[in-house]
Amino acid sequence: MAQKPSIPKGTRDFSPLEVEKRTYIIEIIKQQFKLFGFQPIETPSFENSDTLMGKYGEEGDRLIFKILNSGDYLSKIDDALYTAKDSLKMTSKISEKALRYDLTVPFARYVVQHQNEIDFPFKRYQIQPVWRADRPQKGRFREFYQCDADVVGSNSLLQEVEFIQLYDRIFTQLGLDGVTIKMNNRKILSGIAEVIGASDKLIDFTVALDKLDKIGEAGVKKEMMEKGISETTIQKVQPLFNFEGTNDEKIAQLKKLLQDSEEGSAGVEELAYITSFIKTMPLTTATLTLDVTLARGLNYYTGAIFEVAAPDTVKMGSVGGGGRYDDLTGIFGLKNISGVGVSFGLDRIYLVLEELGLFPQTVTATSKALFINFGDKESLYALQTIERLRVEGITVELYPDSAKMKKQMGYADKRSIPFVILAGTKEIEGENFTVKNMQSGVQETLNFSELKAILTQ
Amino acid sequence: MAQKPSIPKGTRDFSPLEVEKRTYIIEIIKQQFKLFGFQPIETPSFENSDTLMGKYGEEGDRLIFKILNSGDYLSKIDDALYTAKDSLKMTSKISEKALRYDLTVPFARYVVQHQNEIDFPFKRYQIQPVWRADRPQKGRFREFYQCDADVVGSNSLLQEVEFIQLYDRIFTQLGLDGVTIKMNNRKILSGIAEVIGASDKLIDFTVALDKLDKIGEAGVKKEMMEKGISETTIQKVQPLFNFEGTNDEKIAQLKKLLQDSEEGSAGVEELAYITSFIKTMPLTTATLTLDVTLARGLNYYTGAIFEVAAPDTVKMGSVGGGGRYDDLTGIFGLKNISGVGVSFGLDRIYLVLEELGLFPQTVTATSKALFINFGDKESLYALQTIERLRVEGITVELYPDSAKMKKQMGYADKRSIPFVILAGTKEIEGENFTVKNMQSGVQETLNFSELKAILTQ
Repeated sequence: MAQKPSIPKGTRDFSPLEVEKRTYIIEIIKQQFKLFGFQPIETPSFENSDTLMGKYGEEGDRLIFKILNSGDYLSKIDDALYTAKDSLKMTSKISEKALRYDLTVPFARYVVQHQNEIDFPFKRYQIQPVWRADRPQKGRFREFYQCDADVVGSNSLLQEVEFIQLYDRIFTQLGLDGVTIKMNNRKILSGIAEVIGASDKLIDFTVALDKLDKIGEAGVKKEMMEKGISETTIQKVQPLFNFEGTNDEKIAQLKKLLQDSEEGSAGVEELAYITSFIKTMPLTTATLTLDVTLARGLNYYTGAIFEVAAPDTVKMGSVGGGGRYDDLTGIFGLKNISGVGVSFGLDRIYLVLEELGLFPQTVTATSKALFINFGDKESLYALQTIERLRVEGITVELYPDSAKMKKQMGYADKRSIPFVILAGTKEIEGENFTVKNMQSGVQETLNFSELKAILTQ
Repeated sequence: MAQKPSIPKGTRDFSPLEVEKRTYIIEIIKQQFKLFGFQPIETPSFENSDTLMGKYGEEGDRLIFKILNSGDYLSKIDDALYTAKDSLKMTSKISEKALRYDLTVPFARYVVQHQNEIDFPFKRYQIQPVWRADRPQKGRFREFYQCDADVVGSNSLLQEVEFIQLYDRIFTQLGLDGVTIKMNNRKILSGIAEVIGASDKLIDFTVALDKLDKIGEAGVKKEMMEKGISETTIQKVQPLFNFEGTNDEKIAQLKKLLQDSEEGSAGVEELAYITSFIKTMPLTTATLTLDVTLARGLNYYTGAIFEVAAPDTVKMGSVGGGGRYDDLTGIFGLKNISGVGVSFGLDRIYLVLEELGLFPQTVTATSKALFINFGDKESLYALQTIERLRVEGITVELYPDSAKMKKQMGYADKRSIPFVILAGTKEIEGENFTVKNMQSGVQETLNFSELKAILTQ
């Protein structure tokens, strides 16, 4: 019996229309990456296991897909280890390669490996799939694309300014007006923890604060107290719970709040620098907002932290994120290379554009016209015309078999091909074409240049 | 100590320029696939193992990369099996997924799985990486792209005609004039074996004949005799060893040679049909040649067989191949769906274009101009100008740090950025820009529209 075909859970087939829509998004992202001076690189789908393992924490290690060694991989395992039958210990013996888990670690590896060929600062973008053995659920897949742009080798805050502009331009180009670019700074968070005397509880404190819009002020305070942060301490940061106003007003408040923390003040300076540039060069459709509750990626970001929220009209998590990390390549032996980067969430952007009906009508996976197949002689006339149209960049097809008219028309209809061209003996003699508009049903006889004109409309 | 970074053997990092060159080729292929009415699909990088295993022969099974199950994968293995320590038997117990080996089997799986959403005939293209645990060697990699276009659900030979045109158009667009599209037909080969009474030795016979251009007439005859084909038998196909002339002349010879074989005659008819169309619609730069020694993919092709040879000026194997297979989807339970398709060899095409210097100069991974960074005030002026240029589609960068002039100029030079823009206090006052042509060394002062003009040249 034949197999019933299926695909692994958490993976997807993409139909022609889905590929076209994804390509539409990717091309806009790519085009803007390039305009901003980022250069593409690509890395292998799988890396040596020791490149990836230990870089994403214990949970990450577990979620990395491992590739089984080829050949008689069991023969090299000594009996003691084999007898233990311990999956965890066995893995490193029977698997030396693993599918990449993100684009950041492979990028760090690339930079170190090719440091002599690279001119720093190096602005690179990378758009490739990554794989995670996560439990699949709505909107979470085991294979998905990441779209990353990073700069390594420059401490300049102008990079942050340009990344904010880049977010604005990409979402504007996608027609997704009204996104909010939230910005915070790791130094602000450290500074707050410092001035309230809770530096040792930085993570607990920020994780709780991060939930403000979900569980509210009372909820956050309750969680902080549960983590052992005293009520008096929490009192000191009361302004953070009603942190409103313009970016300038927020900066003024923070300046006061953090005046006794050197690190915190440095963070405020950074925010002030970045926002002053953006004030002079206003964003097109996005809004930049300081959000001190933002604690995304706190374990590796050391400076700016970004998160982009979709317009309020759609219920969707962040559609982008990013930040600065001071020591990207240290793990591979190249010290003191600062990096800053952003990432775009392809799958979520897709869902948002779909929900808001923002994919242009021109994004289709169909041809502009179908020639009806009346037989060999007529097909030759059709193919000759098709060749001339293709040279003009017009996508036209000939129905491959001289099937019943009804079948051929039905095919055009089902595939939403807008025009059907009938060219039989009469048309061949007259060197013209009977063209049917499939939507209006109107049929007219046209010569080649009229045909070309109607198909390029 | 830090790890010395490396990548698995047989895989590659692609630098910015390499990505741009690969993208250049892929975009031309894609554009023509679309113009010819093919629609894109994408399938997951890994499939369920039973989708792939057993489809490529024993050797193929061995070369498929298997993915280790997650979690405590050893716990489910019964003791008897475990004690045997047999890698081959163990594999199916600890691995349920595998990286795709080609695009054809996943496509067949896709067609069957989505048959109710597909309007047949279905013209699809697919450009994605595949993985093979082959021994890496020059030009052979463990991860590489395939670029396939196939039609399923039509027996019409007009598909073959269009594929020949497609080959011609793509190689013409790539500037690779003078490729030879070799065409044969499985029915011709069967017919020959039939008329010489060696049907049972079809594979041996064709495998030997396929080597004609490598080992010559004597060599082929020797190999045939070693395989037990008699000298008298070989005598009967003497014309094949000096098979020359126009396609029409070759067809006339074949017609005579195969007159007593029904299958062979059908093959001749097919060749005659296809070549008659191509004669009426001449190819642009490619040449179509009948080549009865061509036996590529004989184990699955059932009709036309194609192979594209690079121009004689470069030493390179085939840069494309394809053919018709009568029962693509049968393995997954959908019978009688004929398919015909072609494939483009990205890596080899890349090498040929490189060798012949055919990549256009416009294929670069650099920016059009670099603004020198003189400090914050000047950077603002630069960024405002850069924003206006980017809107016009011009790639311009600001050097991120106000480093020494020599360092900034050196960066532009190393990255082959053609123009450097100097905008200091004087330029800001005059609302203009000092622009240095990095190649000629010429420096001039331009206003914005003059700057725009020079950067769009």
